[in-house]
Amino acid sequence: MRYFLELAYRGTHYHGWQRQPNGISVQEVLENALSTILREPTALVGSGRTDTGVHAGQQFAHFDTDLTLPDTLIRSLNGMTPSDIAVYDCFPVAPDDHARFTATYRYYQYQLCRRKDPFRADLAYQFVFPLDVPRMNEAAALLLKHTDFESFSKVKTDVKTFNCRIDVAYWEQHPNGDLTFHVRADRFLRGMVRALVGTLLAVGQGRLSVADFGSIIDARDRKRAGRAAPAEGLSLVGVGYPDSVFTQRTTGPAQAF
Amino acid sequence: MRYFLELAYRGTHYHGWQRQPNGISVQEVLENALSTILREPTALVGSGRTDTGVHAGQQFAHFDTDLTLPDTLIRSLNGMTPSDIAVYDCFPVAPDDHARFTATYRYYQYQLCRRKDPFRADLAYQFVFPLDVPRMNEAAALLLKHTDFESFSKVKTDVKTFNCRIDVAYWEQHPNGDLTFHVRADRFLRGMVRALVGTLLAVGQGRLSVADFGSIIDARDRKRAGRAAPAEGLSLVGVGYPDSVFTQRTTGPAQAF
Repeated sequence: MRYFLELAYRGTHYHGWQRQPNGISVQEVLENALSTILREPTALVGSGRTDTGVHAGQQFAHFDTDLTLPDTLIRSLNGMTPSDIAVYDCFPVAPDDHARFTATYRYYQYQLCRRKDPFRADLAYQFVFPLDVPRMNEAAALLLKHTDFESFSKVKTDVKTFNCRIDVAYWEQHPNGDLTFHVRADRFLRGMVRALVGTLLAVGQGRLSVADFGSIIDARDRKRAGRAAPAEGLSLVGVGYPDSVFTQRTTGPAQAF
Repeated sequence: MRYFLELAYRGTHYHGWQRQPNGISVQEVLENALSTILREPTALVGSGRTDTGVHAGQQFAHFDTDLTLPDTLIRSLNGMTPSDIAVYDCFPVAPDDHARFTATYRYYQYQLCRRKDPFRADLAYQFVFPLDVPRMNEAAALLLKHTDFESFSKVKTDVKTFNCRIDVAYWEQHPNGDLTFHVRADRFLRGMVRALVGTLLAVGQGRLSVADFGSIIDARDRKRAGRAAPAEGLSLVGVGYPDSVFTQRTTGPAQAF
């Protein structure tokens, strides 16, 4: 039987989602808790990896087991994991529903705060320099018209193509001046959102024009794009699946943060 | 010349606002930074103390100096202090304006989250048991009709009276089920808000009736009230002063969190 877990984490103290030889990952913490509760080694497959220090307001992972799950599974998982990891739901899915391959989109947000904020030091990138937000949004709109994003991918990667279908990409300005970059796509390349944000910030500062941004996309060369923005501002806030995946879910969806 | 500082802090890693012999306080960190920048020992007087682990979305403190302040003072203070302390403003006041004695009210919020939240682990008290919020609000309304709150004061205290004028006291329920207790008064006794919250939670759980809550106030005996709620949920979010204090302020007020 296959189950989906819905979870969230503050990534500050983890070497990302994915198990690592040198450093604690969210996957490892959850697999250890789950294996202890089920009393059998249980592996998790996440919807995707997140980098060191990156957060998730909504992440999914699947696992397989023939055991009957205890009713207290979610409470036990939350009790056995630290305060920066939360499990919100666990529900059965079809045997071929796959947390990674069945996902239809990933939705990320990047948080910029415009002054020192003691309550969001690890949840937002503090960026105090002036920014031309309309120009950043002009550049962001170009992302919807392209499909090859090799310029924004880490060089060491084993993907076969650099194609992504981005269907949401814009900067939201909050009343207090803080900014959120929203971006959604069927898939993302390694380091892509942070490279996009870093390059869009260069546009916002006038160091690149909107036309420059377009030619960087066309160049398909990581050296042309800007520096990656820091991990602390980035959060995976939603993962999409076909409705059929949720047929046996009993609770409502968790609120994305 | 006397100046007011407006500041905020995440209290998790501090032994409260007030300088302590054994443990780092927000006051000490700020006094050290200010004294370094001004190159003379400079003492801060805060609007009031906050306990270990308690936060402040808005706190004021005053200091006296005959020096001309550098234009970069706020930036320097923010650069020299850790990410969990922020200075928002500095403005001159009249010589008899006093951060503590001129204050007309203190406004606190206590945050309860109703499920595990990785992003607010140190900013809210996780309380998952059922609560009767209307009943908690009935009890909270009694606070406006009383003035002596000895039942909610720490026993070791050197105050002359236990009188406080509470003019705001209610629980707000958020769409996701989380709760915020709002309470404002001219002064608070030591440990008072956390003792009020702990006792109101006992009312919400049905362990005390609204009438019991009234008789606890009347008893003027700390042993009658409930356990203090944990520090992490509590924040000082506003301090009031007469308008005259702000005559020479150049910026707008900081947004309370």
